[in-house]
Amino acid sequence: MAKERFEKPTGTQDVLPGAVEKWHYVEAKARELCRRFNYREIRTPMFEHTGLFERGVGETTDIVEGEMYTFKDKGDRDLALRPEGTAGVVRAYVQNKLYGEPDVSKLYYIGPMFRYERPQAGRYRQFHQFGIEAFGAVDPAIDAEVISLGFQFYKELGLKNVQVEINSVGNAPSRAAYREKLLGFLRPMRDNLCSDCQRRMERNPLRVLDCKVDQDKFTDAPSILDSLDEECTNHFTKVKLHLDTMGVGYSINPRLVRGLDYYTHTAFEYKAAGIGSIDTVGGGGRYNGLVEEIGGPDQPGIGFGIGLERIMLILEDQKVELEAVKPLDVYFVALGEEADMEITKQLFHLRSLGFSAERDYLGRKMKAQMKSADRMSARYTAILGEEELNGGVIALKSMATGEQRSVKLEELAQALTRI
Amino acid sequence: MAKERFEKPTGTQDVLPGAVEKWHYVEAKARELCRRFNYREIRTPMFEHTGLFERGVGETTDIVEGEMYTFKDKGDRDLALRPEGTAGVVRAYVQNKLYGEPDVSKLYYIGPMFRYERPQAGRYRQFHQFGIEAFGAVDPAIDAEVISLGFQFYKELGLKNVQVEINSVGNAPSRAAYREKLLGFLRPMRDNLCSDCQRRMERNPLRVLDCKVDQDKFTDAPSILDSLDEECTNHFTKVKLHLDTMGVGYSINPRLVRGLDYYTHTAFEYKAAGIGSIDTVGGGGRYNGLVEEIGGPDQPGIGFGIGLERIMLILEDQKVELEAVKPLDVYFVALGEEADMEITKQLFHLRSLGFSAERDYLGRKMKAQMKSADRMSARYTAILGEEELNGGVIALKSMATGEQRSVKLEELAQALTRI
Repeated sequence: MAKERFEKPTGTQDVLPGAVEKWHYVEAKARELCRRFNYREIRTPMFEHTGLFERGVGETTDIVEGEMYTFKDKGDRDLALRPEGTAGVVRAYVQNKLYGEPDVSKLYYIGPMFRYERPQAGRYRQFHQFGIEAFGAVDPAIDAEVISLGFQFYKELGLKNVQVEINSVGNAPSRAAYREKLLGFLRPMRDNLCSDCQRRMERNPLRVLDCKVDQDKFTDAPSILDSLDEECTNHFTKVKLHLDTMGVGYSINPRLVRGLDYYTHTAFEYKAAGIGSIDTVGGGGRYNGLVEEIGGPDQPGIGFGIGLERIMLILEDQKVELEAVKPLDVYFVALGEEADMEITKQLFHLRSLGFSAERDYLGRKMKAQMKSADRMSARYTAILGEEELNGGVIALKSMATGEQRSVKLEELAQALTRI
Repeated sequence: MAKERFEKPTGTQDVLPGAVEKWHYVEAKARELCRRFNYREIRTPMFEHTGLFERGVGETTDIVEGEMYTFKDKGDRDLALRPEGTAGVVRAYVQNKLYGEPDVSKLYYIGPMFRYERPQAGRYRQFHQFGIEAFGAVDPAIDAEVISLGFQFYKELGLKNVQVEINSVGNAPSRAAYREKLLGFLRPMRDNLCSDCQRRMERNPLRVLDCKVDQDKFTDAPSILDSLDEECTNHFTKVKLHLDTMGVGYSINPRLVRGLDYYTHTAFEYKAAGIGSIDTVGGGGRYNGLVEEIGGPDQPGIGFGIGLERIMLILEDQKVELEAVKPLDVYFVALGEEADMEITKQLFHLRSLGFSAERDYLGRKMKAQMKSADRMSARYTAILGEEELNGGVIALKSMATGEQRSVKLEELAQALTRI
């Protein structure tokens, strides 16, 4: 009877050797930029109490309303796999009292997130984000810094034509004023809007502007920028000035309100020419009310989240050349049993010294082993037969030139270093 | 009204800046060793179909019987957060047909695993493992290679007194013979054994030897090594010979059967002097039946899993010195608004060139900013006041020597490189 076969869960993926190196490249770039910009990594659990996301992401969002993986643990606690990165980081910032430290908390994370969405190209149920969060500062310089780090990330990865869009969604009074103006604009067209829009009008009218279906109807919608009070306008002006000074190009999109409820002042998105259309590949904003909302002190924050799966797709689509995988230093070919054991010794010795080294484990003939060495891009093969073993030497062959020479066994490491 | 506060779920932890660097160190070591030993990373999803673990880990194990985080997704699929790494990797090996490749598949993983256990020192419900798996070879050389990689990992991390214990649990016929002998030994003492042991006697008597409660009663138990047939004995002898050749020390523990059902031939554990007692910090073995068991072709496999939380504890306990965090290259101190904007420019420019650079975002006085620079171990502070700005220069101060000199703004990067 054939055994049952198992498949990965729908919407997840395996990252295999050959593809994983692309992930290493992108992740190393993120970490390297965070080092330069002085952000330090924080790691929070893969799941949190469900209430944290209801409070921190917003109960009226698509995420919390229908996309979370929720479950009860054996202690009957309501838990959810994290659908995004910010809520957990804010929770950790509060619980670990990082706000008590004298400097601004500048944090980053890279890792899996989980949303139960319809799988499509570049969209997975387990997906991965690189994000940063800065807590404790209202200085517009840090808004610009956060935006510039993301900008630089795409740039140094080699992605072409990434556009930065920015907006200000103001503070609470500015938003309340805008809300009324916007409702005045939307009410007359209410019956022509989709059911999502109609529902959002009641609960969070700003998010109506996010709607993909009704986009065209909002061309003449009032701009939130006209409702900003002096404080908000000044903050936004300064952010733009800092970006100009850095040479980070951007355009202003007054309809950019983002999908989440907790943004204040600066909101921004990164857009890239994707497969067929312009995609939002990342975004973020300021969230001065969030830390208090989830039980912490009144501390401001700002951050971004950048999806990595879509970067992988665009890197492929734009045929961006990545740095090559490091080749193997040496592939050992053993001929005979005694040679086999000597190879075990040499292999472990070289690996201990820092060389990458490989051998055959399948009892294959010399020709098949040489093919393996080729597939693994070995720089050298080291061939040990009875004759060499008796002479205390090994035949070292350059795979690039085909040149072969005899090297004393005890001088092999030295020979490989000198080359 | 005070807002609700949120805490991390019981048994999970936040890894904060200051502690995360230890993780970076350990993970980088794992990756570096895998490069040298020619293992390549594979990433599988955080959750799989529950049936995979029932089949791949074993339905009678503690893990599957009571420690898995299981849940249904919105499509009514039975899913479980992965409680260990091997089952998912085997599933991916089969589903992606890696067995069709000409070379042995040598894979590694690093990442979170999830078990609902009682939290205690070094044991978490979300914990992290580094593991390797090699598929397709029965050569004892690869058993020894796998064991030696783990050995070298602990050694290069600087952990003291890590011991390797090895055993052979044989093939199916050898094990069946041993099972009968062992039952003959256990039956007379059955009523004196704990309830766990009594239950295990029926289902999987080898695992009785794992029992912590009844350990003392098994001193005279028959050794599985006496039941091995010729093939098994030869395999085990060769593994030992390879380890001897490499200089990897080990002891033989005939009672080492591991907690999982699918091991054949070589089984091994790494033990370290932990907090108070000798702890198993990692282990693995050969599992020649597993790939077929979960629906793949008849391909052999061997691997290990190493817990990272306990390594962190032991590193602390043994006061192992880690490499220091890279210091900040330069901290900018701006005095006045105009200087502020020039700093924005310089900061972004230096960061784009690869320097790590920081500034103040809290409008603090110069003295407080200098303290920040100190806390961040900045190599240099660069001070820009009105006077410097008018002269097109910046005051560069070495934090080590206190020496200060004036550098032209456009030559700052060059000055920092030369130093």
